[in-house]
Amino acid sequence: MTARLKDPTTRATITVAGDHSVRIERIFNAPRAQVWKAFTDPALVAQWWGRGHTLDIERMEVRRGGHWRFVEHTPGGREGFEGRYREVTPPERLVSTFEWDGMPGYVAVNDATFVDLGDGRTRVVTVCLFHTTAERDGMLKSGMEGGLNESYAALDRVLAAATAP
Amino acid sequence: MTARLKDPTTRATITVAGDHSVRIERIFNAPRAQVWKAFTDPALVAQWWGRGHTLDIERMEVRRGGHWRFVEHTPGGREGFEGRYREVTPPERLVSTFEWDGMPGYVAVNDATFVDLGDGRTRVVTVCLFHTTAERDGMLKSGMEGGLNESYAALDRVLAAATAP
Repeated sequence: MTARLKDPTTRATITVAGDHSVRIERIFNAPRAQVWKAFTDPALVAQWWGRGHTLDIERMEVRRGGHWRFVEHTPGGREGFEGRYREVTPPERLVSTFEWDGMPGYVAVNDATFVDLGDGRTRVVTVCLFHTTAERDGMLKSGMEGGLNESYAALDRVLAAATAP
Repeated sequence: MTARLKDPTTRATITVAGDHSVRIERIFNAPRAQVWKAFTDPALVAQWWGRGHTLDIERMEVRRGGHWRFVEHTPGGREGFEGRYREVTPPERLVSTFEWDGMPGYVAVNDATFVDLGDGRTRVVTVCLFHTTAERDGMLKSGMEGGLNESYAALDRVLAAATAP
């Protein structure tokens, strides 16, 4: 608890939110406009989304109905991910679908809310909705939490660079 | 009831199958191999999928992970639909996602099973899984049943032409 109070940004909190959803919370040390930009500007997303790995942004049309497709270069090969934007409401809400090439046709919805904490920090709350409980549990067991924390740590570095004097 | 016994192929049976799914059943007067072909051959799909309207098959990669995208020419304009194949197991199972351009980011899964009835007819059972109950109910109220029956009637004609001597 002390560690989290001293540095509340170092890990995401993942909780089960319903039969087939999870809720992810993470605080970032940057104003909301900058965090929003880091989620929606392809040049910035490329620097953190793939856990620090090289990321090809093949498609990223940040508007309702637009598609996205990223390819992450991992030590084991290339991993493709894609989806479509359901809602883009700057700087507060970004809703999109998520599908990994390794499990085609299994589509989750990521509903992200950006909360201005009023002290220069931003809380990002993402509700991930799956079609079934089994899909949710499969994602939780897949190492999602580790990968997410690696990506968010990379995002911390992107935001620190952006806010550096 | 009598009408259904006399001609059991003229309409689909749609029932609620769970909190966020529906089950659709329809019998076709054609052998399973021909029904399977009508669902997976782009030249045939173009003739029935769009309720008898002109249908552009922009993409149709019938294999696990492949994408599909159709554009239907309706009296009111063009309507785009797309998705991806999760499972392709000829001639018995076809699982794919479904998304209408008008509601981007709302993705249903259509899990279709083709049952050989042993008398030259085929029952197609499709379970449609939505992310939420509201999405399912919205689809039911959207006129899905009418559109589906129009498409299946067009499919009857395609199958009759294929089996004609």
